[in-house]
Amino acid sequence: MNRSTQSLLTTVATELASPQSLCGLFHEHRDGDPLPSQPELAEAMDLCRSILFPGFYGKSNVNNQNLIFHIGVALEKLYGILCEQIQAGLCFATGWGEVEAYGETYSSAQDTRKRKAAEFTRIFIQKLPTIRQTLATDVEAAYLGDPAAESYGEVISCYPVIKAITNYRIAHELLLLGVPLIPRIITEMAHSETGIDIHPAASIGHHFTIDHGTGVVIGATCIIGNNVKLYQGVTLGAKSFPVDADGNPIKGIPRHPILEDNVIVYSNSTILGRITIGHDAVIGGNIWVTEDVEPGKRILQNKARTDSPS
Amino acid sequence: MNRSTQSLLTTVATELASPQSLCGLFHEHRDGDPLPSQPELAEAMDLCRSILFPGFYGKSNVNNQNLIFHIGVALEKLYGILCEQIQAGLCFATGWGEVEAYGETYSSAQDTRKRKAAEFTRIFIQKLPTIRQTLATDVEAAYLGDPAAESYGEVISCYPVIKAITNYRIAHELLLLGVPLIPRIITEMAHSETGIDIHPAASIGHHFTIDHGTGVVIGATCIIGNNVKLYQGVTLGAKSFPVDADGNPIKGIPRHPILEDNVIVYSNSTILGRITIGHDAVIGGNIWVTEDVEPGKRILQNKARTDSPS
Amino acid sequence: MNRSTQSLLTTVATELASPQSLCGLFHEHRDGDPLPSQPELAEAMDLCRSILFPGFYGKSNVNNQNLIFHIGVALEKLYGILCEQIQAGLCFATGWGEVEAYGETYSSAQDTRKRKAAEFTRIFIQKLPTIRQTLATDVEAAYLGDPAAESYGEVISCYPVIKAITNYRIAHELLLLGVPLIPRIITEMAHSETGIDIHPAASIGHHFTIDHGTGVVIGATCIIGNNVKLYQGVTLGAKSFPVDADGNPIKGIPRHPILEDNVIVYSNSTILGRITIGHDAVIGGNIWVTEDVEPGKRILQNKARTDSPS
Amino acid sequence: MNRSTQSLLTTVATELASPQSLCGLFHEHRDGDPLPSQPELAEAMDLCRSILFPGFYGKSNVNNQNLIFHIGVALEKLYGILCEQIQAGLCFATGWGEVEAYGETYSSAQDTRKRKAAEFTRIFIQKLPTIRQTLATDVEAAYLGDPAAESYGEVISCYPVIKAITNYRIAHELLLLGVPLIPRIITEMAHSETGIDIHPAASIGHHFTIDHGTGVVIGATCIIGNNVKLYQGVTLGAKSFPVDADGNPIKGIPRHPILEDNVIVYSNSTILGRITIGHDAVIGGNIWVTEDVEPGKRILQNKARTDSPS
Amino acid sequence: MNRSTQSLLTTVATELASPQSLCGLFHEHRDGDPLPSQPELAEAMDLCRSILFPGFYGKSNVNNQNLIFHIGVALEKLYGILCEQIQAGLCFATGWGEVEAYGETYSSAQDTRKRKAAEFTRIFIQKLPTIRQTLATDVEAAYLGDPAAESYGEVISCYPVIKAITNYRIAHELLLLGVPLIPRIITEMAHSETGIDIHPAASIGHHFTIDHGTGVVIGATCIIGNNVKLYQGVTLGAKSFPVDADGNPIKGIPRHPILEDNVIVYSNSTILGRITIGHDAVIGGNIWVTEDVEPGKRILQNKARTDSPS
Amino acid sequence: MNRSTQSLLTTVATELASPQSLCGLFHEHRDGDPLPSQPELAEAMDLCRSILFPGFYGKSNVNNQNLIFHIGVALEKLYGILCEQIQAGLCFATGWGEVEAYGETYSSAQDTRKRKAAEFTRIFIQKLPTIRQTLATDVEAAYLGDPAAESYGEVISCYPVIKAITNYRIAHELLLLGVPLIPRIITEMAHSETGIDIHPAASIGHHFTIDHGTGVVIGATCIIGNNVKLYQGVTLGAKSFPVDADGNPIKGIPRHPILEDNVIVYSNSTILGRITIGHDAVIGGNIWVTEDVEPGKRILQNKARTDSPS
Repeated sequence: MNRSTQSLLTTVATELASPQSLCGLFHEHRDGDPLPSQPELAEAMDLCRSILFPGFYGKSNVNNQNLIFHIGVALEKLYGILCEQIQAGLCFATGWGEVEAYGETYSSAQDTRKRKAAEFTRIFIQKLPTIRQTLATDVEAAYLGDPAAESYGEVISCYPVIKAITNYRIAHELLLLGVPLIPRIITEMAHSETGIDIHPAASIGHHFTIDHGTGVVIGATCIIGNNVKLYQGVTLGAKSFPVDADGNPIKGIPRHPILEDNVIVYSNSTILGRITIGHDAVIGGNIWVTEDVEPGKRILQNKARTDSPS
Repeated sequence: MNRSTQSLLTTVATELASPQSLCGLFHEHRDGDPLPSQPELAEAMDLCRSILFPGFYGKSNVNNQNLIFHIGVALEKLYGILCEQIQAGLCFATGWGEVEAYGETYSSAQDTRKRKAAEFTRIFIQKLPTIRQTLATDVEAAYLGDPAAESYGEVISCYPVIKAITNYRIAHELLLLGVPLIPRIITEMAHSETGIDIHPAASIGHHFTIDHGTGVVIGATCIIGNNVKLYQGVTLGAKSFPVDADGNPIKGIPRHPILEDNVIVYSNSTILGRITIGHDAVIGGNIWVTEDVEPGKRILQNKARTDSPS
Repeated sequence: MNRSTQSLLTTVATELASPQSLCGLFHEHRDGDPLPSQPELAEAMDLCRSILFPGFYGKSNVNNQNLIFHIGVALEKLYGILCEQIQAGLCFATGWGEVEAYGETYSSAQDTRKRKAAEFTRIFIQKLPTIRQTLATDVEAAYLGDPAAESYGEVISCYPVIKAITNYRIAHELLLLGVPLIPRIITEMAHSETGIDIHPAASIGHHFTIDHGTGVVIGATCIIGNNVKLYQGVTLGAKSFPVDADGNPIKGIPRHPILEDNVIVYSNSTILGRITIGHDAVIGGNIWVTEDVEPGKRILQNKARTDSPS
Repeated sequence: MNRSTQSLLTTVATELASPQSLCGLFHEHRDGDPLPSQPELAEAMDLCRSILFPGFYGKSNVNNQNLIFHIGVALEKLYGILCEQIQAGLCFATGWGEVEAYGETYSSAQDTRKRKAAEFTRIFIQKLPTIRQTLATDVEAAYLGDPAAESYGEVISCYPVIKAITNYRIAHELLLLGVPLIPRIITEMAHSETGIDIHPAASIGHHFTIDHGTGVVIGATCIIGNNVKLYQGVTLGAKSFPVDADGNPIKGIPRHPILEDNVIVYSNSTILGRITIGHDAVIGGNIWVTEDVEPGKRILQNKARTDSPS
Repeated sequence: MNRSTQSLLTTVATELASPQSLCGLFHEHRDGDPLPSQPELAEAMDLCRSILFPGFYGKSNVNNQNLIFHIGVALEKLYGILCEQIQAGLCFATGWGEVEAYGETYSSAQDTRKRKAAEFTRIFIQKLPTIRQTLATDVEAAYLGDPAAESYGEVISCYPVIKAITNYRIAHELLLLGVPLIPRIITEMAHSETGIDIHPAASIGHHFTIDHGTGVVIGATCIIGNNVKLYQGVTLGAKSFPVDADGNPIKGIPRHPILEDNVIVYSNSTILGRITIGHDAVIGGNIWVTEDVEPGKRILQNKARTDSPS
Repeated sequence: MNRSTQSLLTTVATELASPQSLCGLFHEHRDGDPLPSQPELAEAMDLCRSILFPGFYGKSNVNNQNLIFHIGVALEKLYGILCEQIQAGLCFATGWGEVEAYGETYSSAQDTRKRKAAEFTRIFIQKLPTIRQTLATDVEAAYLGDPAAESYGEVISCYPVIKAITNYRIAHELLLLGVPLIPRIITEMAHSETGIDIHPAASIGHHFTIDHGTGVVIGATCIIGNNVKLYQGVTLGAKSFPVDADGNPIKGIPRHPILEDNVIVYSNSTILGRITIGHDAVIGGNIWVTEDVEPGKRILQNKARTDSPS
């Protein structure tokens, strides 16, 4: 690299590091408080999967006797990563992030976040056995619902819904605890991996499954009952949302559908707004639904027009 | 970490390692038989791609003279990984997985699986030149079918269909040999990477291409002729499937469409059930097709309604 | 591995390395000129993201004082990788790739490409501050447009559109400079990661956002104004394209839509051909549009048919 | 790389791979039987150290409760590596390496080695608790013998003798089992790390220590009692050895010294031949000893001559 | 792995994790306080070397302009590692390690160690410029003293003394601050790498050099003046040390030699006890010195006896 | 990290990056010319060892058929690394390093070094078969000379002399070509690994061996015949060297011993100055030799004094 190139790099680096260039992008967090790290959280999810589905994820040669060793080591590692990442996420929380405004010193705010993060992590880890129980119902639902599935093992190894619902159920528990930001990063990781976009604030019952899954969107205020099945490309979205005086959306209002128990929605259909799809209803493929559907009802697609070639 | 936290971790680890907690999830495989490993299979696919498309995948500086060295080393590595992974997969096969029930000793069953895995791997590796020939037709189809494509190199480097169809053609050969589970893991890897979900049991002719590809689903009993082109979001799925006395789907019945030669299906259309789309037919975008289409026919979308703003 | 297996591997390696087996697949580049490397370009994109959004990507503990150090080191590394990769990409350019035909010696052609690559890289790096400014408008648009977004930090960390639009804006600058192939690889990386497929040749204004995003396709000759919002599954594609005497598509003709300022397109709609969607128009979900839409117009979906269960 | 360089590389590669070029160097082992791998054995030693001295080697944050998990995982990994490496080493054994000569088939010889390797590994692993007990006496000896040592922890962390004697005690057990080659590789690793060269066939009592250690050599037929202390640069070597008719040394004859209990040898002294240094004897520094020394005797260095400058 | 092998591993793991098996070896540190980590400290030394000798260690392509970026990033990383490692080392200090005995709570003792570690790290980092100045004199001394040295760069790149003296000067500063254990680990790392064993408590002046170096030992209470040169195999050791009533050495008494300015000691000589080698004295090779040497004196080796072959 | 700590780091970084702080240490090389990289050269040596001793170093499962592939890939990688590193080393050469002084432009001097480095690398690689032939004689010498050696494979795997002599023979060839600095780095790597310090400029015949080896020093102007054997701790050094008017050593004068064919030197002896040890002479252990020794002569150690305890 010659001198003029190096000068150019120095100039551009200086410009890119200037505060005005970063306005709005660079999180104004307290000095020394790191932001959540996506690679660390990815490792945490790998650990969770290896703990919840031993043998299928992580070390492939666990057996009845050494399982306790592998889970013991993985849990300890998970504890360490989650403490750090939740603490980093707490900088985004209104409650703990802006404590300085209330006169607390820097280091006591930092201590508060650290203690809080350890507490959240402990509670979360205690919920892992329950999370696994619910996931076992999801595996069962996927296996029973697909004639191509040959074993539970195939479902756990190959069905993208298992990855998506695992991340969702983990993220949902963290969100219920009040952990900010981290849950969204966790579900977005599964979205990137599977094309299934489930907001961690959605509520989803047991025996839930999605076939294929690419393009599925489940919004933040959705309420989904037990034993519900979706196919690829299904959107459970918002129809429109009230705006405030400045024309910006008002946050926090229920705006996504409710799907009661045993509902099936076929591929590429779109269900919008705070409507209710009654229990046992079936929504056909490629349909646009914006009004309540009665329990047990079947909604079908219009027939396609068939033309001769022009 | 203080003592109470460590105690909590130990308690949760013990609970998560208990057999009842794992009921249904932890594959009841013989002790010491590892499960298939996704990272190992991912490496196998990287090796296959570097062998089939040298220079574009793997080492980027191969040339006419050193190519043989790189392929020789890659093939040897591929052989080793596939032997191990296919052996791991054979635990899921009814034929080999439950030999103990027939009185065979543990280690002779293990030996049988090992020998079988080596045999399958050898046969598969011999098919690689033929697989590459067929993939060359897919590259040609993608190049000719897209006005934006500027070179074969661009197609191989950038078109997701090449990754998806490569994994499918490899997985399909393994499935034809009778290798269980592994083929599904291989196509699901491409699904995660490209959003294109092709079941390895589907049958697909030469000169096959998919444009963009996100959201495409091709079911297990599909039969696709030569020179077929799909666009993003196309589903070739099952309409419904017969259930047995317990209400569970009966496995193994042809239930996905047949697309004859030269068919084109535009974006986001859905073709369901064991119907036949005749040769040279064109299915427009956003259409729902559940009945046979005659050869040469064009099926188009209804016109959209245009309203003024409310 | 026994001798016969090793012989088989040697035979297959020899066959796979033979020129006829590679016909059409193995890029006939000059000996010693490496092809672009996807892992290298992936690292370049990681560096760009860590430079453009410090703290959110790359090292998570940057602060006001050490930021200049991290950006300085990252820029230098980025410079090195881009020089090499752009030089590799130039083998695909008609202008520089075939200089030998004009009598230049091999090494002077290589020097020309090397010098040109360094020049392109320098110009590109100077544009990074401007690229960040535009991306800041995209972050703002995503934040304002989604009631579920709680902070700019959440948008940058979790919204797939940010990854896709970042790669697009980088790739677009490189394409404007005349860099071949590399821009397509860069946008395809984001496509794989997010399900959003934006051609680097498309033109996109500021304050652009896409919600959820999976399945979105934006074609090469699209022109998109400012303040445009798309939802998941939207296609901005070509309707049909003129073919030449051999039946192959003619390349380089405008064939994708123009979306003027403030247009919104809801999920899974398809807009095809060189038509214009006028400013402030709203296209509802699941719609197929192939004709111009007037400014301010709202296009809605036909109502779904509701049947009782058969 | 241009064509002529690539041709040169191909020519040299061909020459270097030719059998005559490898005569005497390339082990004529059965095809497919890998040789011992130094990186694998290095990992095995790291695992042994982390098991024997938890916290000081390997994961630094073990505690009373998680220790069992870490040791469990490490032992399993160690078992796998040692089985493979011992099997590789058995190709060097006369007993198992040349079974083909006795008419056994290739794969049954391979099976014999595999079974034997697993058996050796199991026996070795059962000896680990005893090995640790003896090493604890070595740590105690080093601590008590050095006024600069401040804690047992410092001795384990910083004293090269601990690394050397750990590798020796492990290698010695393997050698006693009849494992060929591997023990020598293990002690040579410690030699490279510490400058202390202990032949695995030597016999060494408890409470053994070496201060500083660089340059110490302990020959294959040495017999060292309990509570012996050496300083840096001490050689316990062979004086001369009988040669056979061809002038080559006859292997397997006792030719190194015997040091009885409580002997101390100061720095850089050399003790040669099958002589006995009686219990409680002290050998001063820089001395050359080739004859027996009585118990309790002290051997000192001649005084240095002091000259004025020339 | 079959069941009986796994049972054996579990049994051995349980035995090796039992408290009685660990008696004396497993540091009884507070739960959750990790021990110093050798890989972390090795990385810290790599960072120090890359900061002190930029270009020769670490990134090889630093230049005048980007140097500040590389050093900035390296210093920040070094700060983080040293804080953690010094805190871990403080568990070994009498002052801070046993605070619980004085009624402090666990977490306040932990906080004290953390604050202390940060303070020590800050002071140490401020000393780096001075450390580099002294090291520059050592480089000069090595260059001037060796006719084979062709440039300062060669000395820095290839002379083991530079690695040994760098680690020593760093460790010595930490020891002066009162950091326990860590300094010994740091000099022992250099001992393993170079065969030069310098105790961090020794005092060494500027322009110090060692040629070749293997086997050199410099004891804890040595005092070495300026401009001193040693050759390989030189020991500056203790002659004997007073023992207490239990026969154990009394710690902390001056027992190693003093070398005044401009002393040269040739290869393999041994200087023992609290004696003084006067300024400008020269000690020949292979000599054993246990009494004071006057300034300017030259001590030579006895002539070797020359025999005819027996 | 709080603000004041970050300020401190920034201040120290600025000081450490200032030109005056680097005076004499930071090589004043042309901007953009990287220095030789020790990790890169370490990889080059690993490649050389895997090429020269296939199976023993590098991949452990090479066989007759795949050997050519492994060597082909390794040679290509070696070529790339050596070209870069030799080019980096050429900045230290008087001839090429200071071309700017002669009016050449920067980039033409860079081109000259690049071309020269490629030429040197090509010549070196052609010498590899000959280097291996000579190394085979060294392996034979080590095997025949040690009663403890059980196979050639054990010698190659475990004897440190093989590592040291391999690095020396490689470095010596590079030095003969005129490559600056790199040869010294290569032999110093082996010194660190084995404690054997051979200057690359020394001349050493075939069938050379060293037993144990720690502490051996072989100076730059040594001439060693065929079939010579050394033991640990032997120094072949300079007695004194003429100084110039400034008191600095005059470089380049023969000052180390000549050992004729079949000489044996036992452990810890020191041979100094430009003397000749005649063919078939034997030098006993712990001896200091500064005068010529006649062919066939045996030099022995004085007898040690034996005292009773004081």
